[in-house]
Amino acid sequence: MYLAKINVTLRPSILDPQGKAVQHAIASLGMEDVRDIRMGKYIEMKISSDDAEAAGRIADEACRKLLANPVMENFEVTLEEIR
Amino acid sequence: MYLAKINVTLRPSILDPQGKAVQHAIASLGMEDVRDIRMGKYIEMKISSDDAEAAGRIADEACRKLLANPVMENFEVTLEEIR
Repeated sequence: MYLAKINVTLRPSILDPQGKAVQHAIASLGMEDVRDIRMGKYIEMKISSDDAEAAGRIADEACRKLLANPVMENFEVTLEEIR
Repeated sequence: MYLAKINVTLRPSILDPQGKAVQHAIASLGMEDVRDIRMGKYIEMKISSDDAEAAGRIADEACRKLLANPVMENFEVTLEEIR
């Protein structure tokens, strides 16, 4: 069994109005040192497979088919073995 | 300058209907080995500080005050030095 931790981020060339809004809110709280906020998604899933390569393939397929929009988003998968 | 990578996740005791919906969608695509999907947020921010400890404090404060709901969510900050 593997735990897949997936970060989905907007590609750098895509504008991120949600990040901009959060940045204004943070600045108005007095934290002026914070810049360039980008918002993304984080997904955790368990994959019942004993083979890391197969688990990676399944996580990758889930990202490409459903979790990320490949035109606008990048994704990054980290696998962790669990019992 | 530091890049803070922040994962905000629902606490384990909180139900995650969005994760359940994604799980049904993934199962209907034929990926039956995927279980226990939990959805969270991923945030990247740059912090202009030369001190890792101060940068960590700022990221932590941003999470507690704005990015995460401490009643329902956990957060995890990873710092990376950048130029």
